[in-house]
Amino acid sequence: MPEVRQATADQAAFRDELIARGLFIDSGVPGLYGRGATFEDIRGRVDAVITQAAQADAPESMRFPPLLPRRQIETIGYLHSFPHLAGSVFAFEGGEEEALLQGERADRHEDWSEFQRMTALALVPAACYPVYPAVAARGPLPAGGTVVDAGGAWVFRHEPSEDPARMQMFHQREIVSLGAPEEVRAWRDRWSERGLTLLRSLGLDAQRDRATDPFFGRGGRMLAANQRTQELKLELLVGIAGDEPTAVASFNYHQDHFAAKYGLTLADGGAAHTACLGFGQERIVLALLHTHGLEPASWPAEVRRELWGG
Amino acid sequence: MPEVRQATADQAAFRDELIARGLFIDSGVPGLYGRGATFEDIRGRVDAVITQAAQADAPESMRFPPLLPRRQIETIGYLHSFPHLAGSVFAFEGGEEEALLQGERADRHEDWSEFQRMTALALVPAACYPVYPAVAARGPLPAGGTVVDAGGAWVFRHEPSEDPARMQMFHQREIVSLGAPEEVRAWRDRWSERGLTLLRSLGLDAQRDRATDPFFGRGGRMLAANQRTQELKLELLVGIAGDEPTAVASFNYHQDHFAAKYGLTLADGGAAHTACLGFGQERIVLALLHTHGLEPASWPAEVRRELWGG
Repeated sequence: MPEVRQATADQAAFRDELIARGLFIDSGVPGLYGRGATFEDIRGRVDAVITQAAQADAPESMRFPPLLPRRQIETIGYLHSFPHLAGSVFAFEGGEEEALLQGERADRHEDWSEFQRMTALALVPAACYPVYPAVAARGPLPAGGTVVDAGGAWVFRHEPSEDPARMQMFHQREIVSLGAPEEVRAWRDRWSERGLTLLRSLGLDAQRDRATDPFFGRGGRMLAANQRTQELKLELLVGIAGDEPTAVASFNYHQDHFAAKYGLTLADGGAAHTACLGFGQERIVLALLHTHGLEPASWPAEVRRELWGG
Repeated sequence: MPEVRQATADQAAFRDELIARGLFIDSGVPGLYGRGATFEDIRGRVDAVITQAAQADAPESMRFPPLLPRRQIETIGYLHSFPHLAGSVFAFEGGEEEALLQGERADRHEDWSEFQRMTALALVPAACYPVYPAVAARGPLPAGGTVVDAGGAWVFRHEPSEDPARMQMFHQREIVSLGAPEEVRAWRDRWSERGLTLLRSLGLDAQRDRATDPFFGRGGRMLAANQRTQELKLELLVGIAGDEPTAVASFNYHQDHFAAKYGLTLADGGAAHTACLGFGQERIVLALLHTHGLEPASWPAEVRRELWGG
């Protein structure tokens, strides 16, 4: 088992209060929570505000399950950059005797991993990943490129933590742009502005900053430095609990990383680039609850108007 | 890898047409599909019709992620009954050298399972499972019991198949009743009627029947026989593609199975019973598409009115 990341005192207190109020439902595993009706109501309304903001792009809508073909995370090199965050799906393929042994071990809460074999499936690490092969399978992009809304999808990160804002399973609202390099980058930049406006309209003290992904190991430090220099990743940060502000949205320019892996080309045969944006839905809800209080009925009128209308 | 269940000719043709029309997005793994906008629109509307039917119960709403604590599937004995369907989550916990080896194996699409270790998480096999411990954690049930709506949640079944109606990852709309034995059983029976009416109002030729779960192995045959004799499981069946009708909803009386595992009691301290119902959302959408055609705009007016209103 990996070490569980500890929470600061105020993160732990926030988590306990979320559970006591029924906003979160404790599962016993750090970073895995059920959601009560109020939490989900807010999340749905934040999602609708993002949908509204995305109308300008007239995106095509696609939805994907929380699992993707294991081959895809192999193809895109995810295990080089983020081996510590990936999750793979294992299952049983034995006969009756092994099933009995496995079941008995499980009854005693002992280790039954030896009976499990790797399947063709893995957990989705980022909601945009299934989009690239799906679009590439159609052939060259239409002129002007395309924008795909992958919705609010479940994603997995294997980083058990007592901080309620660091979950192992959460919803990422992702939108993807695929097209010519300058168009894709401009789309990414435009959305980082749009996202900042959106969060501030919800009364959140959001700031934009250059950022890096949590790449693994020594090699990862070089990748991160390169990412920062080229401004490939922008984040919107909001104070939730804890000493540091928390990233609640990111805007990522991939250059040709995904396009090259899947042979994605422009209408004229030129090399396509891609960018994606991801709003961390639960983190935005947590930022709202932390900023405005745990009773949405007492939130500022202008925030309530943005989310509940009227 | 388990054997992939083959499709009948009409199942395969239906699947190909779903993909050609963009209703399904092929992933390359049998039973794992993305969903296009039209498919998701229908699914959302079917979900809303179920929500409407559930208002009579005034259920409490809870939502759970597609993963649950591994300990829960151990506690409820899932690995005895359905070892062949369960999925467990593995992840990497090594250092830089192992990460490099794992990444290189993955680059070549070779076996990298030896670098993966079992985590505290498993795939949710049925959307009701996280409900029982969540309700039990509150103490005895309120007088009259309680009904929980677990929403349309992602569930996993490890049964790769070319039949589009047999997915590895799909949405189950589950509602759970917890209370006194006779009340819970009556709730289950009432809902099997309500479900039949609901499906028929959508123009589906649905039939109700006693059913059994796909229990594993020789011991499973006895469990299934017992389940049938006691009428613990009712299903609603509709013809999709293939030679046999397909179960699109089930209504399950668990007696004290889950309540006993989690120490769930009635307000007066007596033994609680539970029942659940599950609508297979994708199967209902597939039944609609198969029955009424792949163009929802040309569906019968009365079906369109049920789903789109007006």
